[in-house]
Amino acid sequence: MVVKVYGPTYGSPKRVLVCLIEKEIEFETVHVDLFKGENKEPEFLKLQPFGSLPVIQDGDYTLYESRAIIRYLAEKYKDQGTDLLGKTIEEKGLVEQWLEVEAHNFHPPLYNLVINVLFAPLTGAPSDQKVIEESDKKIEKVLDVYEERLSKSKYLAGDFFSLADLSHLPFGHYLVNQTGRGNLVRDRKHVSAWWDDISNRPAWQKVLQLYKYPV
Amino acid sequence: MVVKVYGPTYGSPKRVLVCLIEKEIEFETVHVDLFKGENKEPEFLKLQPFGSLPVIQDGDYTLYESRAIIRYLAEKYKDQGTDLLGKTIEEKGLVEQWLEVEAHNFHPPLYNLVINVLFAPLTGAPSDQKVIEESDKKIEKVLDVYEERLSKSKYLAGDFFSLADLSHLPFGHYLVNQTGRGNLVRDRKHVSAWWDDISNRPAWQKVLQLYKYPV
Repeated sequence: MVVKVYGPTYGSPKRVLVCLIEKEIEFETVHVDLFKGENKEPEFLKLQPFGSLPVIQDGDYTLYESRAIIRYLAEKYKDQGTDLLGKTIEEKGLVEQWLEVEAHNFHPPLYNLVINVLFAPLTGAPSDQKVIEESDKKIEKVLDVYEERLSKSKYLAGDFFSLADLSHLPFGHYLVNQTGRGNLVRDRKHVSAWWDDISNRPAWQKVLQLYKYPV
Repeated sequence: MVVKVYGPTYGSPKRVLVCLIEKEIEFETVHVDLFKGENKEPEFLKLQPFGSLPVIQDGDYTLYESRAIIRYLAEKYKDQGTDLLGKTIEEKGLVEQWLEVEAHNFHPPLYNLVINVLFAPLTGAPSDQKVIEESDKKIEKVLDVYEERLSKSKYLAGDFFSLADLSHLPFGHYLVNQTGRGNLVRDRKHVSAWWDDISNRPAWQKVLQLYKYPV
Protein backbone atom coordinates (compact mmCIF):
# COMPACT_ATOMS: atom_id res chain seq x y z
CA MET A 1 0.00 0.00 0.00
CA VAL A 2 1.37 3.40 -1.04
CA VAL A 3 1.01 6.07 1.66
CA LYS A 4 -0.37 9.40 0.43
CA VAL A 5 1.12 12.51 2.10
CA TYR A 6 -0.48 15.96 1.85
CA GLY A 7 1.64 19.14 1.67
CA PRO A 8 5.21 17.85 1.10
CA THR A 9 6.91 21.23 0.67
CA TYR A 10 6.17 22.47 4.22
CA GLY A 11 8.10 21.81 7.41
CA SER A 12 5.85 19.49 9.40
CA PRO A 13 5.01 17.18 6.47
CA LYS A 14 8.76 16.79 5.92
CA ARG A 15 8.86 15.11 9.35
CA VAL A 16 6.63 12.41 7.84
CA LEU A 17 8.56 12.21 4.55
CA VAL A 18 11.94 11.62 6.19
CA CYS A 19 10.33 8.93 8.35
CA LEU A 20 8.81 7.20 5.30
CA ILE A 21 12.21 7.14 3.58
CA GLU A 22 14.04 5.90 6.71
CA LYS A 23 11.43 3.13 6.98
CA GLU A 24 11.61 2.31 3.25
CA ILE A 25 7.86 2.79 2.78
CA GLU A 26 6.46 3.69 -0.64
CA PHE A 27 4.61 6.98 -0.80
CA GLU A 28 3.12 9.60 -3.09
CA THR A 29 2.44 13.26 -2.37
CA VAL A 30 -0.43 15.69 -2.90
CA HIS A 31 0.45 19.38 -3.13
CA VAL A 32 -1.47 21.76 -0.83
CA ASP A 33 -0.83 25.51 -1.18
CA LEU A 34 -1.14 27.23 2.20
CA PHE A 35 -0.57 30.64 0.62
CA LYS A 36 -3.72 30.12 -1.49
CA GLY A 37 -5.63 28.84 1.57
CA GLU A 38 -6.16 25.38 0.11
CA ASN A 39 -5.92 23.99 3.65
CA LYS A 40 -9.13 25.83 4.57
CA GLU A 41 -11.22 24.46 1.69
CA PRO A 42 -14.13 22.13 2.62
CA GLU A 43 -12.60 19.10 0.90
CA PHE A 44 -9.39 19.44 2.90
CA LEU A 45 -11.23 20.13 6.17
CA LYS A 46 -12.98 16.77 5.78
CA LEU A 47 -9.55 15.16 6.09
CA GLN A 48 -8.11 17.54 8.71
CA PRO A 49 -10.75 19.59 10.56
CA PHE A 50 -8.20 22.07 11.95
CA GLY A 51 -6.86 22.90 8.47
CA SER A 52 -3.29 21.87 9.38
CA LEU A 53 -0.65 19.88 7.52
CA PRO A 54 0.28 17.07 7.18
CA VAL A 55 -2.36 14.40 6.66
CA ILE A 56 -1.69 10.89 5.41
CA GLN A 57 -3.92 8.29 3.85
CA ASP A 58 -2.77 4.72 4.21
CA GLY A 59 -5.44 2.90 2.23
CA ASP A 60 -8.76 3.74 3.95
CA TYR A 61 -7.00 4.98 7.05
CA THR A 62 -6.58 8.75 7.49
CA LEU A 63 -4.26 10.19 10.13
CA TYR A 64 -3.02 13.69 10.94
CA GLU A 65 -0.54 15.40 13.28
CA SER A 66 3.03 14.75 12.10
CA ARG A 67 4.34 13.32 15.38
CA ALA A 68 1.38 10.92 15.62
CA ILE A 69 1.99 9.81 12.04
CA ILE A 70 5.70 9.10 12.54
CA ARG A 71 4.91 7.04 15.67
CA TYR A 72 2.28 5.11 13.71
CA LEU A 73 4.68 4.41 10.82
CA ALA A 74 7.57 3.45 13.10
CA GLU A 75 5.30 0.99 14.91
CA LYS A 76 3.52 -0.46 11.89
CA TYR A 77 6.78 -1.01 9.98
CA LYS A 78 8.82 -1.95 13.04
CA ASP A 79 10.84 -4.63 11.24
CA GLN A 80 11.56 -2.62 8.10
CA GLY A 81 14.17 0.11 7.47
CA THR A 82 15.76 2.02 10.36
CA ASP A 83 14.50 1.18 13.86
CA LEU A 84 13.35 4.54 15.23
CA LEU A 85 11.70 3.54 18.50
CA GLY A 86 14.36 2.09 20.79
CA LYS A 87 14.58 -1.52 21.88
CA THR A 88 13.30 -1.49 25.46
CA ILE A 89 10.38 0.23 27.16
CA GLU A 90 12.90 2.48 28.93
CA GLU A 91 14.60 3.49 25.67
CA LYS A 92 11.19 4.09 24.13
CA GLY A 93 10.27 6.29 27.11
CA LEU A 94 13.31 8.48 26.45
CA VAL A 95 12.43 8.68 22.75
CA GLU A 96 8.98 9.90 23.82
CA GLN A 97 10.51 12.38 26.28
CA TRP A 98 12.75 14.00 23.66
CA LEU A 99 9.97 13.95 21.07
CA GLU A 100 7.93 15.97 23.57
CA VAL A 101 10.87 18.31 24.23
CA GLU A 102 11.14 18.88 20.47
CA ALA A 103 7.39 19.61 20.29
CA HIS A 104 7.14 21.86 23.34
CA ASN A 105 10.58 23.49 23.76
CA PHE A 106 12.36 23.45 20.40
CA HIS A 107 9.53 23.82 17.92
CA PRO A 108 7.41 26.73 19.24
CA PRO A 109 10.12 29.45 19.23
CA LEU A 110 11.41 28.20 15.87
CA TYR A 111 7.91 28.23 14.40
CA ASN A 112 7.53 31.82 15.61
CA LEU A 113 10.83 32.72 13.93
CA VAL A 114 9.79 31.11 10.65
CA ILE A 115 6.44 32.94 10.70
CA ASN A 116 7.92 36.33 11.60
CA VAL A 117 11.23 36.25 9.74
CA LEU A 118 10.31 34.28 6.61
CA PHE A 119 6.56 34.10 6.06
CA ALA A 120 5.41 37.56 7.24
CA PRO A 121 7.32 39.47 4.51
CA LEU A 122 5.82 37.15 1.88
CA THR A 123 2.22 37.64 2.97
CA GLY A 124 2.60 41.34 3.77
CA ALA A 125 1.89 40.70 7.47
CA PRO A 126 3.94 42.72 9.99
CA SER A 127 6.95 41.00 11.64
CA ASP A 128 6.79 41.14 15.43
CA GLN A 129 10.28 42.15 16.58
CA LYS A 130 9.53 41.32 20.23
CA VAL A 131 8.48 37.78 19.32
CA ILE A 132 11.66 37.38 17.26
CA GLU A 133 13.88 38.46 20.17
CA GLU A 134 12.07 36.26 22.69
CA SER A 135 12.24 33.30 20.32
CA ASP A 136 15.98 33.71 19.82
CA LYS A 137 16.50 33.70 23.59
CA LYS A 138 14.34 30.61 24.05
CA ILE A 139 16.18 28.71 21.31
CA GLU A 140 19.54 29.53 22.93
CA LYS A 141 18.35 28.13 26.26
CA VAL A 142 17.00 24.97 24.66
CA LEU A 143 20.24 24.40 22.76
CA ASP A 144 22.21 24.82 25.99
CA VAL A 145 20.27 21.88 27.44
CA TYR A 146 20.86 19.90 24.25
CA GLU A 147 24.60 20.63 24.41
CA GLU A 148 24.75 19.18 27.90
CA ARG A 149 22.67 16.14 26.92
CA LEU A 150 24.65 15.48 23.73
CA SER A 151 27.93 15.62 25.65
CA LYS A 152 26.72 12.41 27.33
CA SER A 153 25.03 10.49 24.52
CA LYS A 154 25.43 10.54 20.77
CA TYR A 155 21.73 11.15 20.10
CA LEU A 156 18.97 12.67 22.22
CA ALA A 157 17.39 9.48 23.54
CA GLY A 158 20.67 7.54 23.83
CA ASP A 159 23.26 6.09 21.50
CA PHE A 160 20.77 5.36 18.73
CA PHE A 161 19.15 7.60 16.10
CA SER A 162 15.40 7.77 16.79
CA LEU A 163 12.15 9.60 16.08
CA ALA A 164 13.31 12.18 18.63
CA ASP A 165 16.28 13.26 16.48
CA LEU A 166 14.40 12.86 13.21
CA SER A 167 11.65 15.16 14.43
CA HIS A 168 14.14 18.06 14.66
CA LEU A 169 15.15 17.94 11.00
CA PRO A 170 12.54 20.11 9.24
CA PHE A 171 12.69 23.10 11.58
CA GLY A 172 16.36 22.56 12.44
CA HIS A 173 16.93 23.10 8.72
CA TYR A 174 15.12 26.45 8.95
CA LEU A 175 17.27 27.35 11.97
CA VAL A 176 20.60 26.60 10.31
CA ASN A 177 19.70 27.80 6.83
CA GLN A 178 16.83 30.16 5.90
CA THR A 179 16.66 32.08 9.20
CA GLY A 180 20.44 32.62 9.21
CA ARG A 181 20.97 31.31 12.73
CA GLY A 182 23.49 28.57 12.00
CA ASN A 183 25.85 30.11 14.56
CA LEU A 184 23.50 28.98 17.37
CA VAL A 185 24.27 25.42 16.33
CA ARG A 186 27.91 25.96 15.35
CA ASP A 187 28.75 27.64 18.69
CA ARG A 188 27.87 24.44 20.52
CA LYS A 189 30.33 21.62 19.84
CA HIS A 190 28.09 18.63 20.55
CA VAL A 191 24.95 20.15 19.04
CA SER A 192 26.98 20.96 15.93
CA ALA A 193 28.29 17.38 15.57
CA TRP A 194 24.80 15.99 16.17
CA TRP A 195 23.29 18.29 13.55
CA ASP A 196 25.93 17.31 10.98
CA ASP A 197 25.25 13.66 11.71
CA ILE A 198 21.46 13.73 11.44
CA SER A 199 21.17 16.27 8.61
CA ASN A 200 23.60 14.30 6.44
CA ARG A 201 21.57 11.11 6.63
CA PRO A 202 20.62 10.01 3.10
CA ALA A 203 16.90 10.02 3.96
CA TRP A 204 16.95 13.72 4.87
CA GLN A 205 19.12 14.64 1.90
CA LYS A 206 16.59 12.90 -0.32
CA VAL A 207 13.70 14.89 1.19
CA LEU A 208 15.57 18.13 0.49
CA GLN A 209 16.29 17.06 -3.05
CA LEU A 210 12.70 15.98 -3.80
CA TYR A 211 10.70 18.74 -2.10
CA LYS A 212 11.98 22.32 -1.93
CA TYR A 213 10.81 24.43 1.00
CA PRO A 214 8.34 27.19 0.06
CA VAL A 215 10.76 29.79 1.50
CA MET B 1 8.52 -0.51 42.63
CA VAL B 2 6.79 2.68 43.80
CA VAL B 3 6.82 5.48 41.23
CA LYS B 4 7.80 8.89 42.61
CA VAL B 5 5.97 11.89 41.08
CA TYR B 6 7.17 15.49 41.48
CA GLY B 7 4.71 18.39 41.79
CA PRO B 8 1.32 16.67 42.30
CA THR B 9 -0.76 19.81 42.88
CA TYR B 10 -0.17 21.29 39.41
CA GLY B 11 -2.03 20.59 36.17
CA SER B 12 0.47 18.61 34.07
CA PRO B 13 1.58 16.28 36.90
CA LYS B 14 -2.12 15.44 37.42
CA ARG B 15 -2.03 13.91 33.92
CA VAL B 16 0.49 11.42 35.32
CA LEU B 17 -1.39 10.86 38.59
CA VAL B 18 -4.67 9.97 36.93
CA CYS B 19 -2.78 7.58 34.65
CA LEU B 20 -1.07 5.90 37.62
CA ILE B 21 -4.43 5.37 39.32
CA GLU B 22 -6.12 4.06 36.14
CA LYS B 23 -3.20 1.63 35.74
CA GLU B 24 -3.29 0.62 39.44
CA ILE B 25 0.38 1.51 39.93
CA GLU B 26 1.67 2.40 43.41
CA PHE B 27 3.15 5.86 43.71
CA GLU B 28 4.32 8.53 46.12
CA THR B 29 4.59 12.27 45.58
CA VAL B 30 7.16 15.00 46.21
CA HIS B 31 5.88 18.54 46.60
CA VAL B 32 7.51 21.23 44.44
CA ASP B 33 6.44 24.86 44.94
CA LEU B 34 6.54 26.76 41.64
CA PHE B 35 5.60 30.01 43.39
CA LYS B 36 8.78 29.74 45.48
CA GLY B 37 10.82 28.85 42.36
CA GLU B 38 11.74 25.38 43.68
CA ASN B 39 11.67 24.16 40.06
CA LYS B 40 14.64 26.40 39.25
CA GLU B 41 16.88 25.14 42.06
CA PRO B 42 20.02 23.19 41.03
CA GLU B 43 18.84 19.93 42.61
CA PHE B 44 15.63 20.01 40.63
CA LEU B 45 17.36 21.04 37.38
CA LYS B 46 19.48 17.89 37.64
CA LEU B 47 16.26 15.92 37.25
CA GLN B 48 14.56 18.22 34.72
CA PRO B 49 16.94 20.65 32.97
CA PHE B 50 14.12 22.89 31.69
CA GLY B 51 12.70 23.40 35.20
CA SER B 52 9.28 22.01 34.24
CA LEU B 53 6.89 19.66 35.99
CA PRO B 54 6.28 16.74 36.20
CA VAL B 55 9.21 14.38 36.61
CA ILE B 56 8.93 10.75 37.68
CA GLN B 57 11.45 8.35 39.14
CA ASP B 58 10.73 4.68 38.62
CA GLY B 59 13.60 3.09 40.52
CA ASP B 60 16.77 4.39 38.84
CA TYR B 61 14.87 5.56 35.80
CA THR B 62 14.02 9.28 35.53
CA LEU B 63 11.55 10.56 32.96
CA TYR B 64 9.93 13.94 32.29
CA GLU B 65 7.26 15.46 30.03
CA SER B 66 3.80 14.35 31.18
CA ARG B 67 2.65 12.93 27.84
CA ALA B 68 5.86 10.90 27.50
CA ILE B 69 5.39 9.56 31.02
CA ILE B 70 1.78 8.46 30.46
CA ARG B 71 2.79 6.65 27.26
CA TYR B 72 5.62 4.94 29.14
CA LEU B 73 3.33 3.85 31.99
CA ALA B 74 0.56 2.67 29.66
CA GLU B 75 3.09 0.57 27.74
CA LYS B 76 5.01 -0.81 30.72
CA TYR B 77 1.84 -1.80 32.58
CA LYS B 78 -0.09 -2.83 29.47
CA ASP B 79 -1.78 -5.79 31.14
CA GLN B 80 -2.70 -4.03 34.37
CA GLY B 81 -5.60 -1.65 35.11
CA THR B 82 -7.42 0.19 32.31
CA ASP B 83 -6.07 -0.33 28.79
CA LEU B 84 -5.33 3.19 27.57
CA LEU B 85 -3.58 2.53 24.25
CA GLY B 86 -6.07 0.90 21.90
CA LYS B 87 -5.89 -2.66 20.64
CA THR B 88 -4.64 -2.32 17.06
CA ILE B 89 -1.92 -0.20 15.45
CA GLU B 90 -4.67 1.83 13.78
CA GLU B 91 -6.48 2.47 17.08
CA LYS B 92 -3.15 3.42 18.65
CA GLY B 93 -2.49 5.82 15.77
CA LEU B 94 -5.76 7.62 16.53
CA VAL B 95 -4.89 7.74 20.25
CA GLU B 96 -1.61 9.40 19.24
CA GLN B 97 -3.40 11.81 16.88
CA TRP B 98 -5.81 13.03 19.57
CA LEU B 99 -3.05 13.19 22.16
CA GLU B 100 -1.25 15.53 19.77
CA VAL B 101 -4.44 17.55 19.20
CA GLU B 102 -4.75 17.91 22.98
CA ALA B 103 -1.12 19.06 23.21
CA HIS B 104 -1.14 21.47 20.26
CA ASN B 105 -4.73 22.72 19.92
CA PHE B 106 -6.50 22.31 23.26
CA HIS B 107 -3.71 22.87 25.77
CA PRO B 108 -1.94 26.07 24.59
CA PRO B 109 -4.94 28.46 24.72
CA LEU B 110 -6.07 26.92 28.01
CA TYR B 111 -2.59 27.26 29.47
CA ASN B 112 -2.63 30.95 28.44
CA LEU B 113 -6.00 31.38 30.16
CA VAL B 114 -4.76 29.74 33.36
CA ILE B 115 -1.66 31.95 33.40
CA ASN B 116 -3.50 35.19 32.65
CA VAL B 117 -6.77 34.65 34.49
CA LEU B 118 -5.63 32.65 37.54
CA PHE B 119 -1.87 32.86 38.09
CA ALA B 120 -1.14 36.48 37.08
CA PRO B 121 -3.23 38.03 39.88
CA LEU B 122 -1.47 35.77 42.40
CA THR B 123 2.05 36.72 41.33
CA GLY B 124 1.25 40.39 40.71
CA ALA B 125 1.99 40.00 36.98
CA PRO B 126 -0.27 41.88 34.57
CA SER B 127 -3.06 39.93 32.83
CA ASP B 128 -2.94 40.26 29.04
CA GLN B 129 -6.53 40.92 27.96
CA LYS B 130 -5.73 40.37 24.28
CA VAL B 131 -4.27 36.93 25.01
CA ILE B 132 -7.37 36.06 27.04
CA GLU B 133 -9.71 37.03 24.19
CA GLU B 134 -7.68 35.16 21.56
CA SER B 135 -7.49 32.09 23.79
CA ASP B 136 -11.25 32.06 24.30
CA LYS B 137 -11.80 32.16 20.55
CA LYS B 138 -9.30 29.36 19.94
CA ILE B 139 -10.89 27.14 22.59
CA GLU B 140 -14.33 27.63 21.02
CA LYS B 141 -13.00 26.54 17.63
CA VAL B 142 -11.29 23.48 19.07
CA LEU B 143 -14.43 22.45 20.95
CA ASP B 144 -16.45 22.79 17.73
CA VAL B 145 -14.19 20.18 16.14
CA TYR B 146 -14.54 17.98 19.25
CA GLU B 147 -18.35 18.30 19.11
CA GLU B 148 -18.35 17.00 15.54
CA ARG B 149 -15.94 14.18 16.39
CA LEU B 150 -17.80 13.14 19.57
CA SER B 151 -21.10 13.01 17.66
CA LYS B 152 -19.55 10.04 15.82
CA SER B 153 -17.62 8.20 18.53
CA LYS B 154 -18.02 8.02 22.30
CA TYR B 155 -14.40 9.01 22.98
CA LEU B 156 -11.85 10.94 20.94
CA ALA B 157 -9.89 8.01 19.49
CA GLY B 158 -12.93 5.72 19.11
CA ASP B 159 -15.38 3.89 21.36
CA PHE B 160 -12.80 3.33 24.10
CA PHE B 161 -11.42 5.61 26.83
CA SER B 162 -7.73 6.24 26.15
CA LEU B 163 -4.70 8.40 26.95
CA ALA B 164 -6.15 10.93 24.51
CA ASP B 165 -9.20 11.57 26.70
CA LEU B 166 -7.27 11.24 29.96
CA SER B 167 -4.82 13.89 28.85
CA HIS B 168 -7.63 16.49 28.75
CA LEU B 169 -8.61 16.09 32.40
CA PRO B 170 -6.24 18.47 34.26
CA PHE B 171 -6.74 21.53 32.06
CA GLY B 172 -10.33 20.59 31.17
CA HIS B 173 -10.95 20.90 34.90
CA TYR B 174 -9.53 24.44 34.83
CA LEU B 175 -11.78 25.24 31.85
CA VAL B 176 -15.00 24.03 33.47
CA ASN B 177 -14.21 25.17 37.00
CA GLN B 178 -11.63 27.78 38.02
CA THR B 179 -11.68 29.87 34.83
CA GLY B 180 -15.50 29.96 34.85
CA ARG B 181 -15.91 28.77 31.26
CA GLY B 182 -18.11 25.73 31.88
CA ASN B 183 -20.61 27.12 29.39
CA LEU B 184 -18.17 26.39 26.51
CA VAL B 185 -18.53 22.71 27.40
CA ARG B 186 -22.22 22.79 28.39
CA ASP B 187 -23.25 24.53 25.14
CA ARG B 188 -22.02 21.53 23.16
CA LYS B 189 -24.13 18.42 23.71
CA HIS B 190 -21.56 15.74 22.86
CA VAL B 191 -18.61 17.53 24.46
CA SER B 192 -20.71 17.95 27.59
CA ALA B 193 -21.62 14.25 27.79
CA TRP B 194 -17.98 13.28 27.13
CA TRP B 195 -16.74 15.63 29.84
CA ASP B 196 -19.25 14.23 32.37
CA ASP B 197 -18.15 10.72 31.48
CA ILE B 198 -14.40 11.21 31.75
CA SER B 199 -14.38 13.62 34.69
CA ASN B 200 -16.56 11.31 36.77
CA ARG B 201 -14.20 8.37 36.44
CA PRO B 202 -13.12 7.23 39.92
CA ALA B 203 -9.41 7.72 39.07
CA TRP B 204 -9.89 11.42 38.31
CA GLN B 205 -12.15 11.95 41.33
CA LYS B 206 -9.43 10.41 43.47
CA VAL B 207 -6.77 12.78 42.06
CA LEU B 208 -9.01 15.76 42.90
CA GLN B 209 -9.59 14.46 46.39
CA LEU B 210 -5.89 13.75 47.10
CA TYR B 211 -4.21 16.80 45.51
CA LYS B 212 -5.91 20.20 45.52
CA TYR B 213 -5.00 22.56 42.67
CA PRO B 214 -2.84 25.54 43.76
CA VAL B 215 -5.56 27.90 42.45
